[in-house]
Amino acid sequence: MAKFAIGIDFGTLSGRALLIDVKSGETIAESVKEYEHGVMDTHLPDGTALGLDWALQHPQDYIDVIATTVPDVIRAVGIDSRDVIGLGIDFTACTMLPVFADGTPLCMLPEFAGEPHAYVKLWKHHAAQKQANRINELAEARGEAFLARYGGKISSEWFFPKMLQTLEEAPHVYVAADLFLEAADWVNFRLTGVMVRNSCTAGYKAIWNKREGYPDKSFLRALDPRLEHVIETKMRGSILPIGRCQGYLTPEIARLTGLTTEVAVSVANVDAHVSLPAVGVTGPGKMLMILGTSTCDILLGTEEAAVPGMCGVVEDGVVEGYFGFEAGQSCVGDHFNWFVDHAVPASYLEDAKRLDRNIHDHLTTLAAALHPGESGLVALDWWNGNRSVLVDADLTGMMLGMTLRTKPEEQYRALIEATAYGTRMIVETFTANGVPIDELYACGGIAWKNPLFMQIYADVTNRVIRISASKQTPALGAAMFGAVAAGSHKGGYDSIVTASAALGKVKEEAYHPRPDAVAIYDKLFEEYRKLHDYFGRGGNDCMKRLKEIKEEVSRWKTI
Amino acid sequence: MAKFAIGIDFGTLSGRALLIDVKSGETIAESVKEYEHGVMDTHLPDGTALGLDWALQHPQDYIDVIATTVPDVIRAVGIDSRDVIGLGIDFTACTMLPVFADGTPLCMLPEFAGEPHAYVKLWKHHAAQKQANRINELAEARGEAFLARYGGKISSEWFFPKMLQTLEEAPHVYVAADLFLEAADWVNFRLTGVMVRNSCTAGYKAIWNKREGYPDKSFLRALDPRLEHVIETKMRGSILPIGRCQGYLTPEIARLTGLTTEVAVSVANVDAHVSLPAVGVTGPGKMLMILGTSTCDILLGTEEAAVPGMCGVVEDGVVEGYFGFEAGQSCVGDHFNWFVDHAVPASYLEDAKRLDRNIHDHLTTLAAALHPGESGLVALDWWNGNRSVLVDADLTGMMLGMTLRTKPEEQYRALIEATAYGTRMIVETFTANGVPIDELYACGGIAWKNPLFMQIYADVTNRVIRISASKQTPALGAAMFGAVAAGSHKGGYDSIVTASAALGKVKEEAYHPRPDAVAIYDKLFEEYRKLHDYFGRGGNDCMKRLKEIKEEVSRWKTI
Repeated sequence: MAKFAIGIDFGTLSGRALLIDVKSGETIAESVKEYEHGVMDTHLPDGTALGLDWALQHPQDYIDVIATTVPDVIRAVGIDSRDVIGLGIDFTACTMLPVFADGTPLCMLPEFAGEPHAYVKLWKHHAAQKQANRINELAEARGEAFLARYGGKISSEWFFPKMLQTLEEAPHVYVAADLFLEAADWVNFRLTGVMVRNSCTAGYKAIWNKREGYPDKSFLRALDPRLEHVIETKMRGSILPIGRCQGYLTPEIARLTGLTTEVAVSVANVDAHVSLPAVGVTGPGKMLMILGTSTCDILLGTEEAAVPGMCGVVEDGVVEGYFGFEAGQSCVGDHFNWFVDHAVPASYLEDAKRLDRNIHDHLTTLAAALHPGESGLVALDWWNGNRSVLVDADLTGMMLGMTLRTKPEEQYRALIEATAYGTRMIVETFTANGVPIDELYACGGIAWKNPLFMQIYADVTNRVIRISASKQTPALGAAMFGAVAAGSHKGGYDSIVTASAALGKVKEEAYHPRPDAVAIYDKLFEEYRKLHDYFGRGGNDCMKRLKEIKEEVSRWKTI
Repeated sequence: MAKFAIGIDFGTLSGRALLIDVKSGETIAESVKEYEHGVMDTHLPDGTALGLDWALQHPQDYIDVIATTVPDVIRAVGIDSRDVIGLGIDFTACTMLPVFADGTPLCMLPEFAGEPHAYVKLWKHHAAQKQANRINELAEARGEAFLARYGGKISSEWFFPKMLQTLEEAPHVYVAADLFLEAADWVNFRLTGVMVRNSCTAGYKAIWNKREGYPDKSFLRALDPRLEHVIETKMRGSILPIGRCQGYLTPEIARLTGLTTEVAVSVANVDAHVSLPAVGVTGPGKMLMILGTSTCDILLGTEEAAVPGMCGVVEDGVVEGYFGFEAGQSCVGDHFNWFVDHAVPASYLEDAKRLDRNIHDHLTTLAAALHPGESGLVALDWWNGNRSVLVDADLTGMMLGMTLRTKPEEQYRALIEATAYGTRMIVETFTANGVPIDELYACGGIAWKNPLFMQIYADVTNRVIRISASKQTPALGAAMFGAVAAGSHKGGYDSIVTASAALGKVKEEAYHPRPDAVAIYDKLFEEYRKLHDYFGRGGNDCMKRLKEIKEEVSRWKTI
């Protein structure tokens, strides 16, 4: 009798459930639900305006995903829901929220509905840069050892800056919150009734270390006296390694989904990290790029190394027995969506319509006809700041080389190339710091749908790129962890290594670098590197000054 | 009995005739004709492909303008054509062509119709940068005194680089040409049968000086032995000061236009230079900006000064008794046309249509609602290279500060601001080098139609800006010179100073700098200046290297 596992992938705009056959790994059914509130970056549901760089979500949207997609995948193929043995979830991170002791998010109470800080702060909420700067300055001044584990910088996207922003800007929200939780852990709390924190987000996003724990009291007190006891109060909770079983579905969730209370739920995980075993990688030397609106890079190493500007290194953070390294790029697919929404002339849309292509395919087709270097353009891929290796949300985009003949497809291609150069910066930085990368793996919509994109990445990085065999790699990984939570005695697996060996797959065809393109991209990359260092490493901080002027003016405007 | 003069302004895309009343200065009629061949920048009429940075025109288009617009303005108001006493023309420059001894352009012969070098090289033909570089290197090495009169650099837009390009790339065209002429002088040759060269283009574009003449033989021989005798052969011809009478209409032209052979034709002039008297300026301290696809700046000084990066200083070059200084920006209106054609999304076009605005007005209205500094953007206005103060056609555009929220109107405004910063660089450079500028004057379509543009210029430069009272300032100036050619005995004027005092006018309302905007733009300009110097003065020559790579790739492609 076949057994099944479900993975639920909570993305930036939607949640997706995948039902897999636990033995073959085959995807039996899938279902997607868009978040009703999407990303709230200009105002709350009640109209309250949000500041610059804010990005919030509504937690009800996550529950709606579960209530809709799980019944969907069961019904779709008519299996016996009792044959579903495990469930795993993965999430964007750091995506966090304040909740009451019973798990109720603050924003769900009418008195907090108009309070931005009561909502979920999405990973790409970038309004806590000031708090991040203070954390970094203090940690550096005190010589805190944890900094080295995060490439020398704590990102404004992470847990402490976001929590500190709440404390400073909305102290009543901070006081009212019983717990600050990763959204991943909050969903699992709702699924199982068991409140634990997963080692992956604790390690990568909340400055937790298996051996040393969280930052110590004296650091937190120095940051803000009100934070001295935050670890044992608002951040309390056991931290369980990923791969473990967190518990079983509550009767309430079983009713909501049509599953049984026998379904084992694995400790929550992060969308990127959960994907590595899903492409069959459980050892070092191979970096997986999860290409979406942003890109997350995951890689295993045999020892802890201090790599400047990486997002983090966490022991057992991805696969037990290895150090899991994370890096990333804040703006990848987002560049192209911005471009299509803001910079593509009507005639291109008409042509695309006439040719029955979507506009991205149309631009890609035109861009694919160009040679490397032909446009004369180079861009810095910082429309949404830089996550690695500069770790600076205050950086902004740049494009250079435009003439009166510059065409939209040339700019589109320049943006693809810019993200590829950003990837090469990451690969070179890891390699130069003792964490070699021989091959690249890719998953996500872009990896599947855009051969030009992947070929440019292969040419720019001069590395072979293998593509995940699954279109829904994170959800597959989450389902695999669900099967591990169930264990072999229930028909699942006893470790992620055995699960990965059985179920992780890449496509047969890989992208190989083309020597002539590699030679040109080597030259172009040197231009990128020079601009990257000039604007990103203090040669000219004009992006920051422009942002300061912008903020000054926008304050002045609202008076 | 009223007397009339006609001015014909030959622009980049069309020619325009203006009929004025010589006493009141009132415009009686005007007529425009688009050039049938426009700007040829990708291929010749027979399909022959043009290289990167080429820009050609067809000389027949100029004759068609005369044949169409002059009869038009006479017919429009039913005046007696015998009351037209003078005619003046102004032209883009350096716009030049090779002709046979009788004035027939080479391109009009079938055997040259497929030869790009046989056509008119338009001012914005930028494919002679290599030749310009060689001229500059040689002149610098030899310590040629003329360099200082041109801000230290001969532009690729000028006469010698363009002629040298022909010599090098199409020696058979060079040999076949009896003369190389400014298109302005060629048109006047056709109008009057008299072949002279005007002092304005000779001085500003062909390295001629009232006291020292052209570059000497030894310089020309060193540049290319074949050029040793070019001055007395292919560049021969008397050089007449502007303001003089070149001759009278030939019977053939009189028939073509319906005018008499009594019409005095003034020596040809340049569109920018002819405009200064038309706004009533015949003294120092006041810079006129002629705003079009590009901008030309004209200013008088009491002594010769070496101003780095100006386009030229010519004694009596604009108004007798003064040194006429010229500077300019290669890309002004062109930026906005490029932007509208290549970077404005369909939704904006739909909104503009719904609101019954043209797209430029729509973007301007949206941009006008923004505060200085609000967009966080800064751009370098080099989509078409930089004319002043860097004199470098190989520079390209740059924009910086983009985020995922950056909107088209913000980019549009950033481009306006960039051109204003470029103007401020020019104003500051003149002022710092002994040629003070207290007030700005502006003419051209943008000056009339776009108050936002002019206000930004006033705020960025912190100077009052007065606007020409005429919508067709160059044509008015040309007509004024026509009236001077006729002289007071025929009902005209005896000098441009008296003509200007009588007929030159500005609007009553001027643009005044707003102190709060000036303060923010002072900060933003410092960012521009830093980037300008970094990319334009050798800090990082990446624009040039990218252009080299682009050329290399495009050669490789065509193999």
